[in-house]
Amino acid sequence: MSYNNSMNKLKIGVCYYPEHWDEFLWVKDLDMMQELGISQIRLAEFAWSKMQPGPDQYDFDWLDEVIRLAGERNIGVTLCTPTATPPNWLIRQHPEILPVAEDGRVREFGSRRHYSFNSQIYLEYSCQITEKMAQRYGKNPTVNSWQTDNELGCHDTTRSYGKLDEEAFQVFLENKYREIAKLNEDWGNIFWDQNYDGFKDIPLPNHQVCEFNPAHRLDYFRFASESLVAYNKAQVDILHKHCDNQPVTHNMMAFINDFDHYAMADDLDFACWDNYPLGFLEHMHKNDADKSEYYDIGHPDISAFYHDLYRTIGKGKLWIMEQQPGPVNWANYNPVPTLGAIKFWAWQAFAHGAELVCYFRWRQAPYAQEQMHAGLLTPDSQPAQAYLEVKELIKEMEAIPQLEIKPAAAALIYDYESIWFWEALPQNASFSFNEWAFAWYESLRSCGINLDIISPTADFSKYKLVIIPSMVNPNAAMLDRVKQASMTKFVWGPRSGSKTANFAFPEEMPPGKLQELVPVKVKQISSLRPSIKISGTGDFGDWSGELWLEYIASDLKPRAVVSTGEQGGIFYNHNNQYYLGVCLDKDSLKSLVQLLLQEAGIDYEILPQGQRICATEQGDFVFDFAKRSYKLPQTSNS
Amino acid sequence: MSYNNSMNKLKIGVCYYPEHWDEFLWVKDLDMMQELGISQIRLAEFAWSKMQPGPDQYDFDWLDEVIRLAGERNIGVTLCTPTATPPNWLIRQHPEILPVAEDGRVREFGSRRHYSFNSQIYLEYSCQITEKMAQRYGKNPTVNSWQTDNELGCHDTTRSYGKLDEEAFQVFLENKYREIAKLNEDWGNIFWDQNYDGFKDIPLPNHQVCEFNPAHRLDYFRFASESLVAYNKAQVDILHKHCDNQPVTHNMMAFINDFDHYAMADDLDFACWDNYPLGFLEHMHKNDADKSEYYDIGHPDISAFYHDLYRTIGKGKLWIMEQQPGPVNWANYNPVPTLGAIKFWAWQAFAHGAELVCYFRWRQAPYAQEQMHAGLLTPDSQPAQAYLEVKELIKEMEAIPQLEIKPAAAALIYDYESIWFWEALPQNASFSFNEWAFAWYESLRSCGINLDIISPTADFSKYKLVIIPSMVNPNAAMLDRVKQASMTKFVWGPRSGSKTANFAFPEEMPPGKLQELVPVKVKQISSLRPSIKISGTGDFGDWSGELWLEYIASDLKPRAVVSTGEQGGIFYNHNNQYYLGVCLDKDSLKSLVQLLLQEAGIDYEILPQGQRICATEQGDFVFDFAKRSYKLPQTSNS
Amino acid sequence: MSYNNSMNKLKIGVCYYPEHWDEFLWVKDLDMMQELGISQIRLAEFAWSKMQPGPDQYDFDWLDEVIRLAGERNIGVTLCTPTATPPNWLIRQHPEILPVAEDGRVREFGSRRHYSFNSQIYLEYSCQITEKMAQRYGKNPTVNSWQTDNELGCHDTTRSYGKLDEEAFQVFLENKYREIAKLNEDWGNIFWDQNYDGFKDIPLPNHQVCEFNPAHRLDYFRFASESLVAYNKAQVDILHKHCDNQPVTHNMMAFINDFDHYAMADDLDFACWDNYPLGFLEHMHKNDADKSEYYDIGHPDISAFYHDLYRTIGKGKLWIMEQQPGPVNWANYNPVPTLGAIKFWAWQAFAHGAELVCYFRWRQAPYAQEQMHAGLLTPDSQPAQAYLEVKELIKEMEAIPQLEIKPAAAALIYDYESIWFWEALPQNASFSFNEWAFAWYESLRSCGINLDIISPTADFSKYKLVIIPSMVNPNAAMLDRVKQASMTKFVWGPRSGSKTANFAFPEEMPPGKLQELVPVKVKQISSLRPSIKISGTGDFGDWSGELWLEYIASDLKPRAVVSTGEQGGIFYNHNNQYYLGVCLDKDSLKSLVQLLLQEAGIDYEILPQGQRICATEQGDFVFDFAKRSYKLPQTSNS
Repeated sequence: MSYNNSMNKLKIGVCYYPEHWDEFLWVKDLDMMQELGISQIRLAEFAWSKMQPGPDQYDFDWLDEVIRLAGERNIGVTLCTPTATPPNWLIRQHPEILPVAEDGRVREFGSRRHYSFNSQIYLEYSCQITEKMAQRYGKNPTVNSWQTDNELGCHDTTRSYGKLDEEAFQVFLENKYREIAKLNEDWGNIFWDQNYDGFKDIPLPNHQVCEFNPAHRLDYFRFASESLVAYNKAQVDILHKHCDNQPVTHNMMAFINDFDHYAMADDLDFACWDNYPLGFLEHMHKNDADKSEYYDIGHPDISAFYHDLYRTIGKGKLWIMEQQPGPVNWANYNPVPTLGAIKFWAWQAFAHGAELVCYFRWRQAPYAQEQMHAGLLTPDSQPAQAYLEVKELIKEMEAIPQLEIKPAAAALIYDYESIWFWEALPQNASFSFNEWAFAWYESLRSCGINLDIISPTADFSKYKLVIIPSMVNPNAAMLDRVKQASMTKFVWGPRSGSKTANFAFPEEMPPGKLQELVPVKVKQISSLRPSIKISGTGDFGDWSGELWLEYIASDLKPRAVVSTGEQGGIFYNHNNQYYLGVCLDKDSLKSLVQLLLQEAGIDYEILPQGQRICATEQGDFVFDFAKRSYKLPQTSNS
Repeated sequence: MSYNNSMNKLKIGVCYYPEHWDEFLWVKDLDMMQELGISQIRLAEFAWSKMQPGPDQYDFDWLDEVIRLAGERNIGVTLCTPTATPPNWLIRQHPEILPVAEDGRVREFGSRRHYSFNSQIYLEYSCQITEKMAQRYGKNPTVNSWQTDNELGCHDTTRSYGKLDEEAFQVFLENKYREIAKLNEDWGNIFWDQNYDGFKDIPLPNHQVCEFNPAHRLDYFRFASESLVAYNKAQVDILHKHCDNQPVTHNMMAFINDFDHYAMADDLDFACWDNYPLGFLEHMHKNDADKSEYYDIGHPDISAFYHDLYRTIGKGKLWIMEQQPGPVNWANYNPVPTLGAIKFWAWQAFAHGAELVCYFRWRQAPYAQEQMHAGLLTPDSQPAQAYLEVKELIKEMEAIPQLEIKPAAAALIYDYESIWFWEALPQNASFSFNEWAFAWYESLRSCGINLDIISPTADFSKYKLVIIPSMVNPNAAMLDRVKQASMTKFVWGPRSGSKTANFAFPEEMPPGKLQELVPVKVKQISSLRPSIKISGTGDFGDWSGELWLEYIASDLKPRAVVSTGEQGGIFYNHNNQYYLGVCLDKDSLKSLVQLLLQEAGIDYEILPQGQRICATEQGDFVFDFAKRSYKLPQTSNS
Repeated sequence: MSYNNSMNKLKIGVCYYPEHWDEFLWVKDLDMMQELGISQIRLAEFAWSKMQPGPDQYDFDWLDEVIRLAGERNIGVTLCTPTATPPNWLIRQHPEILPVAEDGRVREFGSRRHYSFNSQIYLEYSCQITEKMAQRYGKNPTVNSWQTDNELGCHDTTRSYGKLDEEAFQVFLENKYREIAKLNEDWGNIFWDQNYDGFKDIPLPNHQVCEFNPAHRLDYFRFASESLVAYNKAQVDILHKHCDNQPVTHNMMAFINDFDHYAMADDLDFACWDNYPLGFLEHMHKNDADKSEYYDIGHPDISAFYHDLYRTIGKGKLWIMEQQPGPVNWANYNPVPTLGAIKFWAWQAFAHGAELVCYFRWRQAPYAQEQMHAGLLTPDSQPAQAYLEVKELIKEMEAIPQLEIKPAAAALIYDYESIWFWEALPQNASFSFNEWAFAWYESLRSCGINLDIISPTADFSKYKLVIIPSMVNPNAAMLDRVKQASMTKFVWGPRSGSKTANFAFPEEMPPGKLQELVPVKVKQISSLRPSIKISGTGDFGDWSGELWLEYIASDLKPRAVVSTGEQGGIFYNHNNQYYLGVCLDKDSLKSLVQLLLQEAGIDYEILPQGQRICATEQGDFVFDFAKRSYKLPQTSNS
């Protein structure tokens, strides 16, 4: 199933927690939602003990009632499995399901996500409550979709370091390698005499003398990702078994890279994510100047990046399951969004292909951890700023009730396993895969083009240009598809092809089999502290680079060279393949991107600072993050 | 009993550790003290095993002798209970009394304060030694006062995280809430399905997945404070039972805010504190420019702040139980005080209401942790710089043998529970309650006025102006007393009235019941990174603010507004009440303070940078921290 | 035995790991080495389980064969005991040998150095494998030397904090003090009532409430050093017992100061160390400007410092057992060395007295932790840059086949115990003994002189000038030798003589018995934050100082005084002794050094920035780190 670039009917939703409020408010709330124009609500996310107060007790009456009230008002329901918050009775009976932090400490009950993905006991309880819910609501006409758990991997929970996790990791390794001798050889354990006598001797890579073998770390990262994905799949399978026409999704987050979102999405029916533009800029972004510049509107590219990524992951169907409605509570600083930001962000999401923008949350909680997180209503049930803007938004949506985004001619490959490769053995303390990929995205988007973010298994042939910021171990199938996409140009960034699947040098030396596509050989790598700058000249003008410089041997004529020093080419081109062996700085990367767009035959225009464009079949959207204003197709708004 | 603004006979004392020295030095030392003009010594502070070498052995002969020698020389004695240093034999028998750090590690024997306030066994041993001492010395005419323990809470010891602490916390919660359902409701545990099945399931809030419920944290902070206060009270009660005319105090510290000093002081007969001007500036203050500017004289307001605070806490009777005599050992940098600083600090203490300045310590220890901490004598019994200055000081004191400070027209409320509220859920990573209260203090003191620092339970009616930097949950009694103080103006800072006692939104929305006094409603809060500045205009001129901006709805005409952006008033005034919804920067705060002083009818003068004045019935003291000089009433000194 | 300033025949070697490669490569590799001019290889360093696959199994055939192949080609062999990497079977049977980090966590198998020096079981296994190897190869004519273990103390492994370590520490203390009363008195445990009832009550100084007694910490530091030295000695003794004409060494590291290298060297036959100029600059040096300035050539003085130190430690016989051949993998940033650096560093080593430069490693490993660490060959057996430079180097060596360095007229004492004294109780958070000693070294070397770095037990009489940056506790024997060296001038830096061996004040006050040599008395110390500068005038011109200022009383006329403030002299001279009571900044230190060289009658010349000279009997070597070039005697090279 693929929804790619289909026409989206635009919808507004809200996350609702009836269990937080007196029953007499339910009708009022739903009436008010209906009046506002809300057509979707999300329910039951953290309500496990409300539905299952004890091991053998169930109570769904309250949820039946809320769903009934929603149905009466033509409000659709997304039901959530409540497994992000195992209840007290379960933890009390099975404290062993609590996760363990990297420093060895058990992470206690008292917030959320307090379980390990490797606990079989927890898996059983999770499946049990999922099945109960699925059986009850799988054919309910008001329930039109499901969400599993909540923000899997959030709060550093993908990786757990307890005894139970260690045993599961050992089983994973035994299943993968079968013979310990094979593992020892594949990991290169002869080095430092690290050969293991058996799988049961292999520790988790957290309590170190000095660094662990990167192959060891990489396999642990894969294992942790697979555990999470398998945990989620168990719920999805149950839902699929019992539910009719109720697609299943999971609300993903930004900046979480320790599990493979593509692998998870294989199990899901569509994608959604939780979009907090101000929280992400403040809490996760690295550039302080950006944080000040865009503090009340968000970064021009962060939300866009994840819209473009998760649109692909959802095979074209994308919801914003939680949308920031005002200040949040979880960043170091939590500013009030600029006036109009609520509308701005909704249109931005729609223009990137979202079908539903669902606000988190209806009414601000007056207690507990998120009491400083805004809602559409303040705790005293008065309209908050977001409510007023949503009202205006829904009015604006009357002119543009549906959208179809134009197909992108360029794509960027975002590869989780490459992130783990870099993490397992960075060789440069300042290089960040994520920032490097993001710099490419910014450069491309500042040229005013639509862009897809895609997986290594995507169909490349529909793009004129595919950017691969860095793919450490492209497998044979991937390389075949590259070869087959004969009309597509590919740009390979530093360290691409440099390792085998087991984190070793390929026989042919880096970039491995990539040399069949572009005949370059990386002889050595200079990893540089940020204060050292490299400069040179090339077909995209004078350039400046930093952090990472590859020494390349090739019979090809380089298209860019280092000016000073002994080293020659850093950018090569052979047929449709480009290889870049340096980290360019932002300005140079923009110059290179323009050259690439030209050579790929993609029209572009350099946008003013802070401006971004989204092209749809209904016309262009212009988002001006500098001026805090947007223009809808054939209309304007400031 | 209240000593407020009574006439103080000024005295000089010294901390003496006879157990560190050969007996033949005792007579020499006491003779030398007498000759110098010392009239008070403090004894036995860390001498537990000297008095009780084993569970059932006691030896007080040495202490009898030292007290006898002091008495012969008309030197009064403050006796200390030795409980800051449980001896080796006790720890060996009961290792379970050792405290546990927030990271879960047991904090070992080998320094000091190695006990948990929640250990019943330790409490018994503490009471036992206290009773033995009280029985022996409670009627000794030389012993004129007692000190409990030493610097309670120092070295992050208020809060302990062991099993025993967890159980005590659970008992505290059970006593407070009686029913687990009540706790769940009051904490809002329905959020994230955090409902507990029983009190025994509630963990300490240290090993987290993500943040714990702020209500949970706040109750833990209260519990830890109460445990400390109860521990101290047990000793005080024993002393009161056995001792005649020997008031009991405890030597408090600066910058320790994790227990309620007012609650402790309710049990004590008077207050004292340990004043280390250079150590505090270097070790605890946040402003680096100040640290360089005043490195050898101390900050103009830090010691003053604690003099004014503890004078109130002692109901007007204040001692400096430990006074820095030269370089200390415990800060990152430990400079020699400027020449004259020793006299300067003594006069400053007297001019703020202290009766006794007692130096720590007589002779510098030649060994162990504090061997680099100066005394009046160097380890070889030679006069140190401090000795020479004390000699001059005592001469100067002949002209001013007693002092009565003038009553303050203005007061600042320093509220420990509000500190914990802010700590439990800060919402802004850079806001510090302590720095904000201190900024107010600096602004007021730079206007040359006397100031009291008071508790929320103080009598407000004697002041023209009361500043409340932030009081998150003023209770009904407090608000009543505000209303009753009809001639007093009150200034409420940001976040005041914004939470219930259980860390939830008040029904009326922030600032809760405070709205009865000043009709403003806080709709939302913008928490800003330090690089973002807000500016505006108002009755105190153009202003600039940072970190915290409240969006206020009110029918009142604002007396200051934001210039740019959508938001209006940030400063309102209604009858005698002012409400400020922003953190002003230092210059703007000074402008506001002048407006407030004018409106309250308090005379003031803007002092030169670094200068401070203390008004007494004997005349004004002028302390010039910039020039490192002071002027006594009707005399001068540079 | 002493090799001092003997003529060295210069040799090139390489570290070889035959166990990493297929057997068919061995012959090829050794042929290629022979052809290149390699005359020494190091073997078996981490190959324990290859030699001893299980408790009672041995297999030396492979090693026999490699040694035979080397012998056939006149390549000498250094054999290593493999004890830096206890194999999996041993850890599985005896997990208790794993070391424990300061935070209490067991450091797991999976990298290297995963053992505690205090494990008797591990000692037995270490001796067993050592004896087996010694018995087999002790008379093998190709094996010409031994290396014990690898980089002892690396990765913070000198100090371990487990139960077993605690017990060993208690035994150490009991052996040292015999009676607990003696320990209590020597440590000054009466302070804070820290008296111990028995040795079994004394904890390791890691889990603290506040700081532990510095005497406690100092003894722990000594204990940890002694444990390491004893562990090494056990292997050396076995090798000495079984081997003929095979001197034993250990490859030491830079910047590791937590064990006494002199004590270890007493057991060894000669010294060697592992020289990584770029890694050390990036990873260990503190000055960021230097890190950028010299990023691809290394700091002018870091490698030189350790050459000069270990040449002394080896009694004149020095090998570079591992020499950086290209980028390394273990620093935050790992740049490619500038062209020519490989030759530059080799000549630098030779000119400082090294006899062998042995590259790490022959072929870059294609897997595991160090796969990004360069070798002479790339993983595909192609010559790396280093290979080409070594080839040129060996050609250049034809003109200078042997060297004899000229004796130094000046020496600097580097005293490990003083480092621990400073660490046990720093009193200034920014002062670093290591940086202070290094600043002296830089100043002296920038005057173009040869220098020895020596121990406190060295013969001082052969030097005109001996610099003692700081010696906290010079013992009586040391002071006697100073007195006897009547033609030598001595310069004592801050804190010298300030403590007894038990970290207490000496009876005579600082600088203790040093006052017999130079009559000064330190009354107090001002420890200053880096932003505070002190200035003054003196016989070496106007000066500026920082961090540490002593207040000195003396009848001597000071040769330098503080300009501002009350304090007088900071530099005194009496007969041949100088005492300096302040930390001069770099420029002032250079001025002082010139004065000292003049007064000591040592010729010098101020070298241009970045230039260094090594004087040998064969002529002067000039190393220009700024221009990245060197000049050999009577020839030139750029």
